[in-house]
Amino acid sequence: MTADISPADAIETTPAFDPAQPPHPRVVLKAGQSKRLRRGHPWVYSNEVEMTPAAKALPPGTVVTVQDAGDEPLATALFNPHSLIALRVLAPQPDVAVTTALIAERLHHARTLREALVDGPFYRLAHAEADGLPGLIIDRFDRYCVVQANSAGMDRLLPQVLEALDSVVKPEGVVIRDDTGGRALDGLPVAGVRTHGTVPDGPVAVRQNGVTYRADLTGGQKTGWYFDQRDNHALVARLSKGRTVLDVFSHAGGFGLAGAAAGATSVLCVDSAAPALTLAAEAAAETGVGDRVETRQGDAFAVMAEFAREGRRFGVVVCDPPSFVKARKDLATGAKGYRKMARMAAALVEPGGVLFAASCSHNMPADRFLAEVTRGVTQAERNARILAQTGAALDHPLHPALPETAYLKGVLLALD
Amino acid sequence: MTADISPADAIETTPAFDPAQPPHPRVVLKAGQSKRLRRGHPWVYSNEVEMTPAAKALPPGTVVTVQDAGDEPLATALFNPHSLIALRVLAPQPDVAVTTALIAERLHHARTLREALVDGPFYRLAHAEADGLPGLIIDRFDRYCVVQANSAGMDRLLPQVLEALDSVVKPEGVVIRDDTGGRALDGLPVAGVRTHGTVPDGPVAVRQNGVTYRADLTGGQKTGWYFDQRDNHALVARLSKGRTVLDVFSHAGGFGLAGAAAGATSVLCVDSAAPALTLAAEAAAETGVGDRVETRQGDAFAVMAEFAREGRRFGVVVCDPPSFVKARKDLATGAKGYRKMARMAAALVEPGGVLFAASCSHNMPADRFLAEVTRGVTQAERNARILAQTGAALDHPLHPALPETAYLKGVLLALD
Repeated sequence: MTADISPADAIETTPAFDPAQPPHPRVVLKAGQSKRLRRGHPWVYSNEVEMTPAAKALPPGTVVTVQDAGDEPLATALFNPHSLIALRVLAPQPDVAVTTALIAERLHHARTLREALVDGPFYRLAHAEADGLPGLIIDRFDRYCVVQANSAGMDRLLPQVLEALDSVVKPEGVVIRDDTGGRALDGLPVAGVRTHGTVPDGPVAVRQNGVTYRADLTGGQKTGWYFDQRDNHALVARLSKGRTVLDVFSHAGGFGLAGAAAGATSVLCVDSAAPALTLAAEAAAETGVGDRVETRQGDAFAVMAEFAREGRRFGVVVCDPPSFVKARKDLATGAKGYRKMARMAAALVEPGGVLFAASCSHNMPADRFLAEVTRGVTQAERNARILAQTGAALDHPLHPALPETAYLKGVLLALD
Repeated sequence: MTADISPADAIETTPAFDPAQPPHPRVVLKAGQSKRLRRGHPWVYSNEVEMTPAAKALPPGTVVTVQDAGDEPLATALFNPHSLIALRVLAPQPDVAVTTALIAERLHHARTLREALVDGPFYRLAHAEADGLPGLIIDRFDRYCVVQANSAGMDRLLPQVLEALDSVVKPEGVVIRDDTGGRALDGLPVAGVRTHGTVPDGPVAVRQNGVTYRADLTGGQKTGWYFDQRDNHALVARLSKGRTVLDVFSHAGGFGLAGAAAGATSVLCVDSAAPALTLAAEAAAETGVGDRVETRQGDAFAVMAEFAREGRRFGVVVCDPPSFVKARKDLATGAKGYRKMARMAAALVEPGGVLFAASCSHNMPADRFLAEVTRGVTQAERNARILAQTGAALDHPLHPALPETAYLKGVLLALD
């Protein structure tokens, strides 16, 4: 699926005012609530904060100094009185100036790390808390960047972020995606897509795993590309040589095209979104594997059922759907969905073939996902062995105090 | 550490008797205890079995047919009345003949899978339950194999296993390691090392990740090599280019030499076992990286403390110790050990460097290991981000009903 594109606006980069110069307003923790923060945890929840009238009156995203109940200043943080995560720590010192220079330093550090981790200028440059930039997501596509400000603080600091990005990466163009659901969690408007600088009208290239993919930065899902699956693409591609590949929920062909480039005999990408399949077909042609890649628009479950009726089998089947568990209350329903997906997919794997299933649901624990996938495979009456459980690629680091933010889960199975 | 070598004996390969021809003796489950087995779980615990005098009298490792409390025959299994895991399922049908041909078929299937997963004839060929061979471990080193029979059933079927292995891999020589602790859990004697066929006196080559390692099949730890770390070696090697590497608990140089081959500027392997370090040094010379690899014999914690006092720093530090939690009761102590290890190792990582820590303890849960490692790093006053959580290489599959047998945990961190 692709989001609607809002009209692109020019963005004002010169900060009209600077809310981030100390001394910052004070936000005080309730008695006994400073321990986690002192140990290095980057979040304080709203019920741990003294929500005084003065605190409540602060605009969402204000840079504040956090004090404990004894008025000891502890840290500099982004404050949002209307969010479950009321405070997001920027620095473990009080009254740190949150300047363009500070953000640029963190982006520079993040860039240095990515350059050690990833070949080529296509990666997640900033992964929020883990990079010291709470709620900020930046994906880099060589000369272009896509920015998501998913916290009120980063939304407010966007002019400084863009200025910092300019100094660290010098992008020709930046796309600001205000159309993501993550913003709603922090009380931000889920609006449209804006651009800054020069952004191409059409898709841009993403070169990884021997493929030149095409990503739609303004209209595609999320930031336009799923860098988090890069290493999983490579893993599945390793097993795709000489085999037929069915890539269900293919989006723009991430798994399928990596398989084709690695020597799959034929690849079929299935997705409900015609624009994504067009990108996949164009990328296949560009990569020189167009003769081995086909696309099929349709509902994933319906297409899998059809193939099962026809007795079609594939050497490699990939299922990488959108989140089935968007809220915690949907866990049981979503779990059933993953089980059904695995059951239907397993039926399409030829003897000796492999199945890769993924979940990008924050609310689906890894062990539960594995259990649902293996139950589905068992329901399909297929013997299997678990070859690997995987996560997101290395350019999606986690803050050490937030291991639970590891949203991406992959399971690789060999079927008898 | 290396185990003592017992005198090598010739092994009789012709089965003196065949305990595995149906009809098999019956072992009956208690009422209500067949559900898990019917769902495909490969184990039945001793408290779920009617331990009649007849059952108790069966020799450990007898091939039996499992019946439910209503006398319905369910499965063919290996029975050990003296083990916590009383029944290990071989086939979900009763009275299956457990012949050399059946074992050969499973080994052939296992080999086909490994050839799709691993480049070259160096891999774990049989990984017990996941390969339909409960308790049987076989590592392949090209023309040689190392066998561990860790269940009474496989110990009893060893002649058939060797015959099957001969038909599937045709090894020049096989080492049977009866010196592993795993055997004690199934009531088997922990004895010496025997050989079958022609096994070289000295170490054999292991080619992977651009390195020609040297493994001691008769005297080294476990089977002589840790194939489970192959993919983790590759992951850390990716980050070792242009950096200095400290490989603590190096054994025969798995991580360090892969780093050297990938372009590390210098590598230091630390281990308490001189023979393992000799293998590392020889392998470094053989691989052509001898000028960049040094070894240091000593206690890992003592050497790390010494380096900390001296202010030595490395771009990459690896800690892959022997199990700190050999029994569940040692969890708290072992957890502290991992924390201390991470704290000491983190102090040796230069700014912007990486730390890889591993645990091979069955009894250490992955989330707990991650928590202890990150706590240790925090205690060292280092900011970090989690880049990856890893497991064993793909040739160490898991049975889908036994995800808890994923013993190997790795954590990769980037340090500020």
